Amino acid sequence: MEEELKGTELRKRVPYHIHRDVLDELSVDQVAEKSDVKFSAKEKLKDAVRCTGPRFKNCFLSFIPLLAWLPRYPFRENAIGDLVSGISVGIMHLPQGMAYALLAAVPPVFGLYSSFYPILIYFIFGTSKHISVGTYAVMSVMIGSVTERLAPDSDFMMPGNDTNITILDTVGRDAERVKIAATVTFLSGIFQLLLGLVRFGFVVTYLSEPLVRAYTTAAAIHVIVSQLKYSFGINPQRYSGPLSLIYTVIEICALLGKTNIGTLVVSIVTIACLIIAKQLSALAARKIPIPIPVELITIVIATVVSWQMNLKTKYKVEVVGEIPSGLQAPVAPAVSLLGSMVGDAFALAVVGYGIAISLGRIFALKYAYKVDSNQELIALGLSNSIGGLFNCFAISCSMSRSMVQVSTGGKTQVAGAISALVILVILLKIGELFEELPKAVLAAIIYVNLHGMMKQFGDICSLWRTNKVDMVVWVMTMILTVLFNPDMGLAASIAFSILTVVFRTQLPKYSLLGQVPGTDIYRPVEDYNQVKEIPDIMIFRSSATLYFANAEMYIDALYEKTGVDVAKLLSHKKKLEAKRLRKEKKAAKKAKKEAKKRAKEAAVQTTKDPQLSDTDESDEEPELSHTGANGDVHKMSVKEPKHVVTVETWPDPNTDKPLPRAIILDLSPVNFLDTVGVKTLRNIYKDYGEAGVQVYLCGCQRGVVESMENGDFFSEKLTKSILFSSVHDAVLYCQQGNSEEVMPGTHL
Amino acid sequence: MEEELKGTELRKRVPYHIHRDVLDELSVDQVAEKSDVKFSAKEKLKDAVRCTGPRFKNCFLSFIPLLAWLPRYPFRENAIGDLVSGISVGIMHLPQGMAYALLAAVPPVFGLYSSFYPILIYFIFGTSKHISVGTYAVMSVMIGSVTERLAPDSDFMMPGNDTNITILDTVGRDAERVKIAATVTFLSGIFQLLLGLVRFGFVVTYLSEPLVRAYTTAAAIHVIVSQLKYSFGINPQRYSGPLSLIYTVIEICALLGKTNIGTLVVSIVTIACLIIAKQLSALAARKIPIPIPVELITIVIATVVSWQMNLKTKYKVEVVGEIPSGLQAPVAPAVSLLGSMVGDAFALAVVGYGIAISLGRIFALKYAYKVDSNQELIALGLSNSIGGLFNCFAISCSMSRSMVQVSTGGKTQVAGAISALVILVILLKIGELFEELPKAVLAAIIYVNLHGMMKQFGDICSLWRTNKVDMVVWVMTMILTVLFNPDMGLAASIAFSILTVVFRTQLPKYSLLGQVPGTDIYRPVEDYNQVKEIPDIMIFRSSATLYFANAEMYIDALYEKTGVDVAKLLSHKKKLEAKRLRKEKKAAKKAKKEAKKRAKEAAVQTTKDPQLSDTDESDEEPELSHTGANGDVHKMSVKEPKHVVTVETWPDPNTDKPLPRAIILDLSPVNFLDTVGVKTLRNIYKDYGEAGVQVYLCGCQRGVVESMENGDFFSEKLTKSILFSSVHDAVLYCQQGNSEEVMPGTHL
Repeated sequence: MEEELKGTELRKRVPYHIHRDVLDELSVDQVAEKSDVKFSAKEKLKDAVRCTGPRFKNCFLSFIPLLAWLPRYPFRENAIGDLVSGISVGIMHLPQGMAYALLAAVPPVFGLYSSFYPILIYFIFGTSKHISVGTYAVMSVMIGSVTERLAPDSDFMMPGNDTNITILDTVGRDAERVKIAATVTFLSGIFQLLLGLVRFGFVVTYLSEPLVRAYTTAAAIHVIVSQLKYSFGINPQRYSGPLSLIYTVIEICALLGKTNIGTLVVSIVTIACLIIAKQLSALAARKIPIPIPVELITIVIATVVSWQMNLKTKYKVEVVGEIPSGLQAPVAPAVSLLGSMVGDAFALAVVGYGIAISLGRIFALKYAYKVDSNQELIALGLSNSIGGLFNCFAISCSMSRSMVQVSTGGKTQVAGAISALVILVILLKIGELFEELPKAVLAAIIYVNLHGMMKQFGDICSLWRTNKVDMVVWVMTMILTVLFNPDMGLAASIAFSILTVVFRTQLPKYSLLGQVPGTDIYRPVEDYNQVKEIPDIMIFRSSATLYFANAEMYIDALYEKTGVDVAKLLSHKKKLEAKRLRKEKKAAKKAKKEAKKRAKEAAVQTTKDPQLSDTDESDEEPELSHTGANGDVHKMSVKEPKHVVTVETWPDPNTDKPLPRAIILDLSPVNFLDTVGVKTLRNIYKDYGEAGVQVYLCGCQRGVVESMENGDFFSEKLTKSILFSSVHDAVLYCQQGNSEEVMPGTHL
Repeated sequence: MEEELKGTELRKRVPYHIHRDVLDELSVDQVAEKSDVKFSAKEKLKDAVRCTGPRFKNCFLSFIPLLAWLPRYPFRENAIGDLVSGISVGIMHLPQGMAYALLAAVPPVFGLYSSFYPILIYFIFGTSKHISVGTYAVMSVMIGSVTERLAPDSDFMMPGNDTNITILDTVGRDAERVKIAATVTFLSGIFQLLLGLVRFGFVVTYLSEPLVRAYTTAAAIHVIVSQLKYSFGINPQRYSGPLSLIYTVIEICALLGKTNIGTLVVSIVTIACLIIAKQLSALAARKIPIPIPVELITIVIATVVSWQMNLKTKYKVEVVGEIPSGLQAPVAPAVSLLGSMVGDAFALAVVGYGIAISLGRIFALKYAYKVDSNQELIALGLSNSIGGLFNCFAISCSMSRSMVQVSTGGKTQVAGAISALVILVILLKIGELFEELPKAVLAAIIYVNLHGMMKQFGDICSLWRTNKVDMVVWVMTMILTVLFNPDMGLAASIAFSILTVVFRTQLPKYSLLGQVPGTDIYRPVEDYNQVKEIPDIMIFRSSATLYFANAEMYIDALYEKTGVDVAKLLSHKKKLEAKRLRKEKKAAKKAKKEAKKRAKEAAVQTTKDPQLSDTDESDEEPELSHTGANGDVHKMSVKEPKHVVTVETWPDPNTDKPLPRAIILDLSPVNFLDTVGVKTLRNIYKDYGEAGVQVYLCGCQRGVVESMENGDFFSEKLTKSILFSSVHDAVLYCQQGNSEEVMPGTHL
């Protein structure tokens, strides 16, 4: 076998079109049948059929993965790991759920609900074994922007006991906000469900890594700003719309004078303690297998201190307040509100899915299993939509909890289910103990949790080093999200990151290629000293695909690099032509005169001299060349045989260096051709053809050739013989078989 | 020479990195110095210096092209052609100027001003010899949308003689509208000037041909709808903002009952006459060198008829009204209005420039001269900004007039200047004669002029055949422009056409390549029957560049096409590994027991058996594999030597077919790599490496290799030895030198 293949080195080179003739035995339909697109369409059909046929069971199992994996759950191996991990994660859910409820601007108990229902549902429908779904800071702050926009404090002012003072109806406000949060969550779940059912899981591909990291960083800034009021104990006005972050910061700065000292002290102490405790726990992690629940300890201590010192009444520190025991009955979403939150719900759906699937993929890759992106959409969609009915707010998955879940030995979704049970116990029995917890403590927990996101600012430096365009995407996403809030900012960032594809292909590198001596390898001459240009032949390549945004630059670069400015060349040629014509005219007049003389002398011939009609034609030509396109082109093709003779020695009017015999365009980096691209290639072929330079194309992919075919690039004159498989083929062809061919320039 | 080059066929193949070492003699700086980007930066600097040095004259001449070409004007050759052409175009300016003034919602005389001042200025600064700048339907309708939005009829209602009836203050309204039109024109001129000075002429590249054609078609629909009121003699309400076209059409339909029969008759008669006359004139064009001024004749006859029959008072047909003689003094733009029209002015600037430059390029190509895109911006900018001071509305260039200018023998800008003089004569003397001209006649002229644009609907069919994506661009541009009006529609259309680049690269065709027997040419196996896959080696290619939007699909397609699902493979391997470990454990326990037995039996040795510590390690491993990424990876690399032995015969768990020895990724269609692309390649290398399959890359452009270098793709373990110049190089390398290499999979 190896001997046979070594022989390929002594192969024969044939131009591309010959390959095509020999090889092209599959019909277009066959090719289409074999190609991906049709294939996947067929697959989809099969999928659909599969669901209705005897394979219904399979489809059902893939819709409810629990039924597939739970019966085969390796109890002995996984049970202990999952139990330990579930309890650890459940303990984390408590402070995070309460803190993130503050972000969503709803009472803390709803954060606990959100840490219970959706997780149970994900347990049934999810396919990732390691991610910890539940409350997530970014999602919560997005919910918060909706709730505070639709139910601002100002709507719930009611006259107090004094007639002049209005007081805030917190109960009414919170009830309204819970309704709003649940409704937007329900709607985002429905969006996710629909996207999953139409298999739109691929939308997440637009969320590139730099974008997601910048986006989460910017969202973290929103989170922090929204929590400052709890840390300082102030009550700034609520802003919405673009630049609201800036206005809020200004407002907070203005209100700093009214800071509640008690609250501030609680904040500072808690933050300091948390940082120290986290450092200690990181040190201890090597010795203790289960992480220390720093945050749980913090809130327990803080609650006890707050209760003992009576912070609420003595120092007016705002506390969590009533935490009702038990669960609540499901409530229908507020249909009347749906219209005003479509955009927010869609953003929530995309962001929640994007975060969950990226994390799920990371773990899937590490532990070698597969996450079904569409099933994940369905699972999250059901979690959110059912959760929304039970007054939960939108969930996604949290990086920190997932890391704990994995590191404490969690191996399957069972860990998640156990963590939900832990929350259930808290909800039913222990929750009310935390009523005296200061909100400032929860804010402190949020800050300390988010310090990892702030580290992502380091991305700017590393991206600056690795890829400047991606750095620009990072910075722009960050700025757009900070300025336009997480919902609008996400759309703007995705639009910008898509635009970068255009920037990246719009300023390609154009180069002339030369041969690496002794090989058939061609490389840019400016990159390598050894590379030699082939005499009489120019090989031109653009580093990017050819399409409307860079077609003009392609032509300009070709003119510049080859040193052949076709426009100047043609005008020069026209002048020479005109001169020649004038000379011919004079000569013809002379001949006419002489003929007349002779005619007089002979006085016999009365028929016109054949020379004469020829002269008439030349007479008209200078005028003709201005009567429009058709006349002009027609003239050229008539004149062609004449200038083909002169073409070989035609000098460049500027440099007087001889024209190349042929120009070879290496199109291997071309991904697709649009109509502008096809026209550009046709113009290049035509213009250089007029100047007497033949143009060959090589390295075209099949799709590119098809675009040319459909775009009427080829004609009787311009056949596929200008296509070559590789640069070397084209070069050899130019050097060898050229003289036998029809001269270029004749097929105008 | 030819002998020497033929010898290249017997060349030696060496991998890419060897080429690099040998060839890479230019330093990065040298390369950068040679590369386009720096070069053009230098050029710009030179340009700047040029202006201040002794070459000031050159720069001055390029800023005022008139000074360069007028002294060398070949009077004898061009004068007659330019004169005839100038008069013909001037005659066309009259009806077009008046009609388009209706579109701009200003009195007709301002259309004549717009056909005078800007043309004179373009004559001085323009570089295109053949385009006829002046009023243009699309621009006029855009102006009209601004004037009618900022000065609606409703603002100028004043109490009439009866107390209950309000009448329209047309004088005040028109004065205000003229001010608005002049101001927006001035601002758009300033935009064009600025864009030209910062050399932003390239923005026009975003206006691809399908987009421009669809845009002008949609704008023509706006034009027609805005003229219907004049044809029916009705007075619908003015709508603005998105969907205003739809509302206007509905309103017009509702008002059809109030049609003024006189006006309708005038419209129908004029349209019928115009169509017939145009057909006759097209037939006559072959015999008469100068086109028949059909429109001029129409308005002359219509004016006479209107005056004789007293259409205005007898049938209440709306007529043009007062046309003041002479010119007006310049007026400063209304600064207070500038803020409310920035968007419109920018759209006007881009559209006006886009139309003019596309037409200019067509003629430049045909008559072999060069149009300087930045100078054109400056010329149009000056025309509009100075024109704005003289109460003109924004101009561009008209296709129909340009065709007439060229076909009647116009050879330089002098023709334009002469046409301006014709308009001047009309303005000073003849204009007032047209006061009785019915507006319906002007509307009819507009309809008939636009029928060419309606023909552009045929593009849909031809684009459907040639390029479906471009057809979608056409249809979307059309719909967006119709729905969102020319200004917003343009922005939306450009955004959409840029998005198509993403669509085009997002669903590429993935293929496995095989060898054309006896050559070093590799082609997709699904396209050709003769192509043979190389045994043991898979060659994979995507038709498009690799970046964030298709990176995931690239991996999926690679798994599918190669039939090697790394995730499954790894999980299978892990299971086997675990089994093996369990067996080893059992064996070790047995050994332990035996050792203990022996120890008991011997009862002499007290030190631990070396076997024992080994056993302990295996004991821990199953747990270790769940302690996180580092532990896991570490384990793998420790275990590596063991599975390298088994790798060669490792079966695919699904099909039991042997794994390929190597996978070669052909990256020649890759234009650029972003960080996601680099990570994807690294993951592919790593994952297949773990499974024991070596991955090679070939056909990388220099920029792609640089992105990999900057993106930390290469390391001590993963060197540039995986890069090859061509597919064939990589194949030969795999088949020959592989056995000497370090085994793949060890550099995890």
